Formats: sequence, structure tokens, C-alpha cells
Amino acid sequence: MNITVIGLGLIGGSFAKTLKGLSAKNRLIGSDLSLKNEKKALALGLVDECLPFEIAIQNADIILLAIPVDVIEKQLPFILDKIKDSQLVIDFGSTKLNISKVVKTHPKRPNYLAAHPMAGTENTGPDAAFAGLFNKKILIICDKELTNEVLLEKGITVFEKLNMEIIYMDSDAHDRHIAYVSHLSHVSSFMLGITVLNMEKSEKNIFNMAGSGFESTVRLAMSSPEMWSPIFLKNKKNVKQALSQYIEQLKLFEKSLDEEDGNSLLEFMKRANHIKKALNK
Amino acid sequence: MNITVIGLGLIGGSFAKTLKGLSAKNRLIGSDLSLKNEKKALALGLVDECLPFEIAIQNADIILLAIPVDVIEKQLPFILDKIKDSQLVIDFGSTKLNISKVVKTHPKRPNYLAAHPMAGTENTGPDAAFAGLFNKKILIICDKELTNEVLLEKGITVFEKLNMEIIYMDSDAHDRHIAYVSHLSHVSSFMLGITVLNMEKSEKNIFNMAGSGFESTVRLAMSSPEMWSPIFLKNKKNVKQALSQYIEQLKLFEKSLDEEDGNSLLEFMKRANHIKKALNK
Repeated sequence: MNITVIGLGLIGGSFAKTLKGLSAKNRLIGSDLSLKNEKKALALGLVDECLPFEIAIQNADIILLAIPVDVIEKQLPFILDKIKDSQLVIDFGSTKLNISKVVKTHPKRPNYLAAHPMAGTENTGPDAAFAGLFNKKILIICDKELTNEVLLEKGITVFEKLNMEIIYMDSDAHDRHIAYVSHLSHVSSFMLGITVLNMEKSEKNIFNMAGSGFESTVRLAMSSPEMWSPIFLKNKKNVKQALSQYIEQLKLFEKSLDEEDGNSLLEFMKRANHIKKALNK
Repeated sequence: MNITVIGLGLIGGSFAKTLKGLSAKNRLIGSDLSLKNEKKALALGLVDECLPFEIAIQNADIILLAIPVDVIEKQLPFILDKIKDSQLVIDFGSTKLNISKVVKTHPKRPNYLAAHPMAGTENTGPDAAFAGLFNKKILIICDKELTNEVLLEKGITVFEKLNMEIIYMDSDAHDRHIAYVSHLSHVSSFMLGITVLNMEKSEKNIFNMAGSGFESTVRLAMSSPEMWSPIFLKNKKNVKQALSQYIEQLKLFEKSLDEEDGNSLLEFMKRANHIKKALNK
């Protein structure tokens, strides 16, 4: 199978590397706006060859878009214009509704599969890619009824080879839920990082005093700004709602602390402890 | 050496277990208000025996207090009343100024060593204890000039056996810095947990959609309410300041998002990325 990966960062690179490792029959073609990324991806053996975008998509059975969500939104209609009936285009963007809207009436809409893998690390670029990133991870497929059945099956077969667990949702619900379960975490972590950096001018105290708890909470603050800025903007309505509820919650905590209301603090934390059950820990 | 550990949870239990494993000459005596915890600690081999509090402290070379900070504040003066000149009392509380104040003029003040290990997990109780929790972790010793030199050396020898890296600070600076580098992380994580739980009534979506990023950010929301409520209250002034700066930062982000100011969002995240350097990642 010929598989083209557009965008050779953590996600695209890991997808390519895993599939290349699974079968010698998989031919992986990469394409990235950055020549440096293409060279690295080749050197690391993530792909078999790199080709210019328009050539790379010509003969691929599957084309994966692992690029920022605003770029997916712009490029997807043009890609669909160019492909043949047998080709499948999958995107791995973290927002889905904006993308679904721009291809809604496209005649090749059935050739597109909207997907979002719940996998990633705070690291970026081809160097961060590794086989197994998607192993046992959730993959959310959106609006599956809008994809041609045969092509959907083809996509699912690949995801199953990656050992992913598939769940289904519509784009609108995806964006609402993901704002809470992923996007808000990133906002909270980015802003926590800034708050602490503002206080600790020297950075030495952070390094000396940071325990594993702080590191865990602030890990996402190391994520790629270029990837996350479009995600927040494209999911603005839902992220704003989640963020404003988060700020309200923090203010409630602040009030209880101000009033030295130990019982109320205890109740907040006991409620928060339920996340353990939700995460099945 | 006879070592008494008051409080057989994650911290006290791990301290006891590690020292017991290091030398057969270390005799570990435990004491906990919960009989269940004492039984578990014995069953798990964390300590050699459990004794009632007043007896447990009688013949110990070192007494470690691994109990909530409000209880340390209450109990420490009484313990100092009872001990002999050769005995050393160490506390591992996460706030230091409140405790230092209540023993400031105590005639046995030189027998007390204020310490805070930057180590822990979100798990609690004797079951969570493990040898090696303190390995290569930072230990902050506060106000070392107020501890008798010989006893200070005795304490340091133990911490070095645990393979900890020691830094020194006064109680006031400790509480100010730790509010940012630890206490604020916990508030942000607890409240993030509640915000998401409020949105996702069924908990099923959380379980299905939570990636490793969300888990990392919300990990501290599983921490012990009984331990954390007194920490927040005893470090109220500093936690309030950190929290209000965090809320301000989140509001700045909210404003930029509302105005769809992509450049400003990028700048925030690039600034936050510096935490990587601060953590030496």
C-alpha cells in the first residue's frame, strides 16, 4: 500500500514509522513544507522518500494530513479536487467542525475521513516521532456516515494495524468534549508555566524546587505554539466556554481560601478526586 | 539507629521502608492515629513495630513527622517538651513558616530540623509507600542555623543515605516559592478536574477521550484532600497571590482568544515554552 504523510512532525512521523515497521509492503511517502524536516525524516527512516506535495498525493492509497488545523482547513478542498475515486484522505487534526464545514458539499467528501488520535507528547518534530505512539490509544472518527463505506473500512483496517481503539462521534460533539478533555488542559498548563516563570525570574528556583507534581502539571506548556494557536482559534467557542468555567471554579476556590473555609476546600478536592474513577485509575 | 516515624502514609511509609532496607541496624518504629494504617505498615514491612505516640518518641534518635501541616503545628511543641537533648525531630511538612513560628522561642528549638522533600505521588496511605521515593530528589532544609550543629549533621547524614540533594532556604522564602512551584499546581489540577467532571456528567466521555496530556495535567487532582486543605490554609497569603496571578494570566489568554489575536496567543505559548529550559528538559 502506498501511504503519503503530509507533515512529518511527531504525529505524521510516528504514523509513518509505525506503518513502515509493520510491513515491507507499505511504501511511505512524506512531504513537509520544511526541507529540514524532510531530510530528518529520511535520515531517521520514518519514510521511504520525500516528494513535493502535489506529486506525493498522486498515487497514494491513503493520504494522511498531520499538519496544523488551519492548514488542513485550507488545503483539504484542493486535495479533494485532485484525487481519484479510489483514494482516501484522512486528517488527524485536533478540531473537526471547522474542517467538516469546508468540505461539506465537496463532490469528493466521501473520500475524506475525519479522525483524531488521542495520542501525543509535549515534543515536536521528526525527532520526536516513534513507532508505537498510537498503540492502544483512542482514535475518534467523526461523521463516519459521510465517508464512503469501502474507504472507511480501508481506514479502519490501518487504525487497527496501529492497534488503536476506535470510537465514533459527530464533529460538533467532538469539538465540545475535546475542549474540556484536551484543549483546556493545554491552556491551564501554558498559563501555569507563564505564572511561575513570571514569579521566578531566575529560573533557578524552579529547577531546584520543582517536584514531579509540578512537572506533570506543566508538561503541556512545552507543546508547540504553532500547532496550538490554530486549535484554540478554530475551537474558539468551546474553548472559551471551558476556560470561563475553569476560571469560575478557580474563583470559587479563591473565595473559600480567603474565608478560610476548610470544609469547602475539602469538598472541592473530594469532588476533584472523582477524576480517578473517570480515568479508571 | 532508632528512628520513629509519625504518620505512616506515602511519605512516612516510604521514608521508613527505604531506611529499613538500607541497614539492618536501623530500627524503625511507626505510629499512626489510624490503627488500620499501622496494621498495613507492619504487614508491608515498612516498620519493625508500631507503638503509641508517646512511647514511640521516647527512645528514638530521630523522630520524623510525616503528618498534615496543621497537626505538625499543634504537636511539635509538645514533642519538643518531651524529648532529650540528644534527640532530633524532623518534619516533612509542605509549609514551613507557620511551624517555625510556633517553636521559635521553644528551649528545644535546636532539636528541630525543618525539611521539605520535593517528592511524592498522587497516591496516599501505606500501600502507596515505596523504597526509593526520595532517591535523587531535592530536600529543602529551612532555617538550618536554628538547629543544633551536631543534630543537623545527623539529619543530613540520613538524607544523604536516602540519596537526596539538599538545598537551603529560610522558611519565609520557602513558603513563597513553593506556593508557585507546588501549591498552585495542585489548585490548578484540582479545579481542572472539577471543571471537566461538571461538564462530562457521564464520566464515560472523559474515560474515552482523555489522552496522556489530560491525565498528566489532572494527575494531582487525585491528591489527598485531608493533606492539602491545611497546606492551602497555612500558606494562604502566598497561595492566594499565586492563584490570583494565575487567574489574571488565564483572563489575558481569554481576551486574546476572544479577539482572535493569533499573534498574542503564539507569544503566550512561546513564553510558556521557556519552562522547558527551567526544568532542564
